[in-house]
Amino acid sequence: MSTLVDTATSTATSIPATNPAATYNGTTTEPVVNRSSKSMRDTKYRHVFATHSQQRMSNLTHGAETPSFVGFRNLMVLVLVVSNLRLMIENFRKYGVLICLSCHDYRRQDVIYGLLLYLLVPVHLFIAYIIELGAAQQAKSALAKMKKAGEEKDTPETLADARRKFNFSWRVVAFFHGVNASFNLIISTQIVYYNIHHPGIGTLCELHAIVVWLKSCSYAFTNRDLRHALLHPNQSEPLPKIYATCPYPRNINFKNLCYFWWAPTLVYQPVYPRTEYIRWGFVARRMLEVVGLSIVVWIASAQYAAPLLQNSMHGLLSMDLVSIIERVMKLSTISLFCWLCGFFALFQSFLNALAEIMRFGDREFYGDWWNVSSVRIYWTTWNKPVTNFMRRHIYSPLVGRGWPPALAQIAVFFLSGILHELLVGVPTHNVIGVAFAGMMFQIPLIFLTDILQKVKGIRGKVAGNMIFWITFCLVGQPLAALLYFFAWQAKYGSVSKQFQESPALQLFLRR
Amino acid sequence: MSTLVDTATSTATSIPATNPAATYNGTTTEPVVNRSSKSMRDTKYRHVFATHSQQRMSNLTHGAETPSFVGFRNLMVLVLVVSNLRLMIENFRKYGVLICLSCHDYRRQDVIYGLLLYLLVPVHLFIAYIIELGAAQQAKSALAKMKKAGEEKDTPETLADARRKFNFSWRVVAFFHGVNASFNLIISTQIVYYNIHHPGIGTLCELHAIVVWLKSCSYAFTNRDLRHALLHPNQSEPLPKIYATCPYPRNINFKNLCYFWWAPTLVYQPVYPRTEYIRWGFVARRMLEVVGLSIVVWIASAQYAAPLLQNSMHGLLSMDLVSIIERVMKLSTISLFCWLCGFFALFQSFLNALAEIMRFGDREFYGDWWNVSSVRIYWTTWNKPVTNFMRRHIYSPLVGRGWPPALAQIAVFFLSGILHELLVGVPTHNVIGVAFAGMMFQIPLIFLTDILQKVKGIRGKVAGNMIFWITFCLVGQPLAALLYFFAWQAKYGSVSKQFQESPALQLFLRR
Repeated sequence: MSTLVDTATSTATSIPATNPAATYNGTTTEPVVNRSSKSMRDTKYRHVFATHSQQRMSNLTHGAETPSFVGFRNLMVLVLVVSNLRLMIENFRKYGVLICLSCHDYRRQDVIYGLLLYLLVPVHLFIAYIIELGAAQQAKSALAKMKKAGEEKDTPETLADARRKFNFSWRVVAFFHGVNASFNLIISTQIVYYNIHHPGIGTLCELHAIVVWLKSCSYAFTNRDLRHALLHPNQSEPLPKIYATCPYPRNINFKNLCYFWWAPTLVYQPVYPRTEYIRWGFVARRMLEVVGLSIVVWIASAQYAAPLLQNSMHGLLSMDLVSIIERVMKLSTISLFCWLCGFFALFQSFLNALAEIMRFGDREFYGDWWNVSSVRIYWTTWNKPVTNFMRRHIYSPLVGRGWPPALAQIAVFFLSGILHELLVGVPTHNVIGVAFAGMMFQIPLIFLTDILQKVKGIRGKVAGNMIFWITFCLVGQPLAALLYFFAWQAKYGSVSKQFQESPALQLFLRR
Repeated sequence: MSTLVDTATSTATSIPATNPAATYNGTTTEPVVNRSSKSMRDTKYRHVFATHSQQRMSNLTHGAETPSFVGFRNLMVLVLVVSNLRLMIENFRKYGVLICLSCHDYRRQDVIYGLLLYLLVPVHLFIAYIIELGAAQQAKSALAKMKKAGEEKDTPETLADARRKFNFSWRVVAFFHGVNASFNLIISTQIVYYNIHHPGIGTLCELHAIVVWLKSCSYAFTNRDLRHALLHPNQSEPLPKIYATCPYPRNINFKNLCYFWWAPTLVYQPVYPRTEYIRWGFVARRMLEVVGLSIVVWIASAQYAAPLLQNSMHGLLSMDLVSIIERVMKLSTISLFCWLCGFFALFQSFLNALAEIMRFGDREFYGDWWNVSSVRIYWTTWNKPVTNFMRRHIYSPLVGRGWPPALAQIAVFFLSGILHELLVGVPTHNVIGVAFAGMMFQIPLIFLTDILQKVKGIRGKVAGNMIFWITFCLVGQPLAALLYFFAWQAKYGSVSKQFQESPALQLFLRR
């Protein structure tokens, strides 16, 4: 009974202070105390209380103090959860359980080639190391020669001579690096395209090759500049202070290379900020996240995305626009979910675990890209390792050489488009250019959202954020997934035999 | 070209200030100016820039500064819009256009009885006025007698005598008011239940009757206390200041009653806060909202809710629990949407328009109930007119008479449950008690969310808000709609003939 009274008392306190009823009802507990007092009762006129004693506006009327809408955020979360649970029930009633561990058909050959590539690809990094060893040797002897001739003045002739020499040896080094790095990418791509049928294994191999390719390039470029700084100390800006503990050519050693090989970055530095010790508990939690999220993504794609893609084929083949839009809309939620899980698993969980093991200090693998109001900022925040590489080794040098910044940016997107196409088109054995086109399509989009952001202030920001989400997660991704799945089916699937006469397929095969 | 450079320059500024690359890239525009300067080029080492110069945590790691998640809110809005657009496409492909102006079958009799009730119900308010006229006359003569006997002392005997007299005359007045108000409710309910088949017309009539019933009660109670205050000035607390301009019995006049008749409140006051003039533009905008939202709700229920309810019947009849859950989940979104539109149309648009026309100053028809973390606060904020009535004429007087507050609350919910059942069960001709049970079920829910709110701080608040949304909008409403629809179909629909042998129906009809 005491709890009954207690909770009831809280009614009075829960009434907003602006409500005059609060002061009136503040006396509601008194009668409990003076229950027998008859005079109290007689003098209280409860029925005449002035409920309406002042002018007040409705909350939602324009001009009133805007109330908080945090409850509607909670409601949105709930509706999303409930409506997707409902779709899961519908899916289950329609298809039953589609998840199956033993149904995955990858060939024996795929695994063998995959393992081979896993072992072979890093070799190119070691070849780059050997090239750099030679270059360092050459630089040391050049430095010794210069010191010997140190008494001579720095005439313009000797300076020009030194530059010529340096440029010549750089060209030789660059040639070897270029051959090495290109072979890495060409061999891997060829093996994945012709010998690895399974798109999952193929993607992993291609991703590995691209990562090592980017690392080799960064290793070569960075050491070129370090060498130049060593040979021409007067012409150079001071190097970053953090490098002082390991000056060139001392950084060209096997241990330093191995650290770069495993460090969660694509940008070579002789020295990185390091943490003091490894927190193994942190590593374990991050790895658990990776495993858990991978299972979730696998279930989502096997149980939900796969049948959806399968029964999208008919609409796509008969070129029924409304049906295609409806399928893309349905696909968008599941692809968005997989994307968010995959992003978290890779950029938060996996890279943080790897960084912890490597005692790598700079964990800024991504920014808060979900808030971006401009597509441009999205591309510079969602994937910091690649952004850092592109900015340091492509964008800045091009601008330094006199390219207009906009052109340098287009160059970056061009390279990025090629890499995306390699990553998606090659493992699915359909280099149809959709991934590349998607990247190039970002350039006009950037101009659009840049303008929007400037024009309208806060509304422009929300609009920019919406455009980003629509183009990227709700249209771009599911549409691309559908097209590559369609291409795959047209090449290997049963659908191609079934619908040989479809106009869309004819159009597609004629290309 | 200048815009190209311009937008590209903004890249550098758009990089967060904490990123050291910002200072580095801040020089990117210089080469555009000094494009021919060779020495500049030589001294810039872009490839050695220290991208990783300090220890940083990932945004989403526990312990890092939590970033804003406003982008995800935008994403949620988008996903909700897109997934419901998709369901609309699906609905359209399945059913075509179901909206039909000429298909509504209401009988001629329904309209006649509806109009009759519309004219007859307010008459009871005028009868209440006549009763009050008599009571005021009686009070005036009693006051004159008391003044005549004014020389005599206020002995306890005369006081007791006065109280006895007052109580006797109040009992007479109360009897007449009771008969009048009860006849209003009984006649209306009888006509709606037996003579008006169409549930829409029936609901409007029943709602009208209940509103007038509540107004009559408030009129009687308030004037009773005003009369008492006039006759026993020494025993009473001072009346609210706002009433001073129209003291009893001057407020018992026809104009005053007519104002109360149309004022958007259920609580009688001799005087209300008033605005100075009518803004007709405001009225027009609000009425446009009412019309627009009514059309939206009509389309939503005809095109989406109706087929959903129809094809829920099979699952309900065969008592397939998973199917019932799935249907309730699907129904929840549409019923929630209709509920929110209806709430806005009635409480914001209609009542504000009416208040503007009546120059009624206190527009607090609702609080920010969407944010509530306790079911209790929901019930005191979503419908302020009824809350004000219940608090002033039921809860406070009961507590004043010595009832424990919790018991007084239960009494309020009991009355509210009866009114809800009248409002839903009578027009659908199925007084099955679901609406009443739903109201009574709020009492344990209030205790639960009260406890939750106290236990856990901010998380408890979110949990309380979620429980509110789940019970009320996602489970309570659609389930109740389904049950009343089922009851309707069992009584009138074709379904009852089709599934005569269904176990659920047998169970239902046996009751």
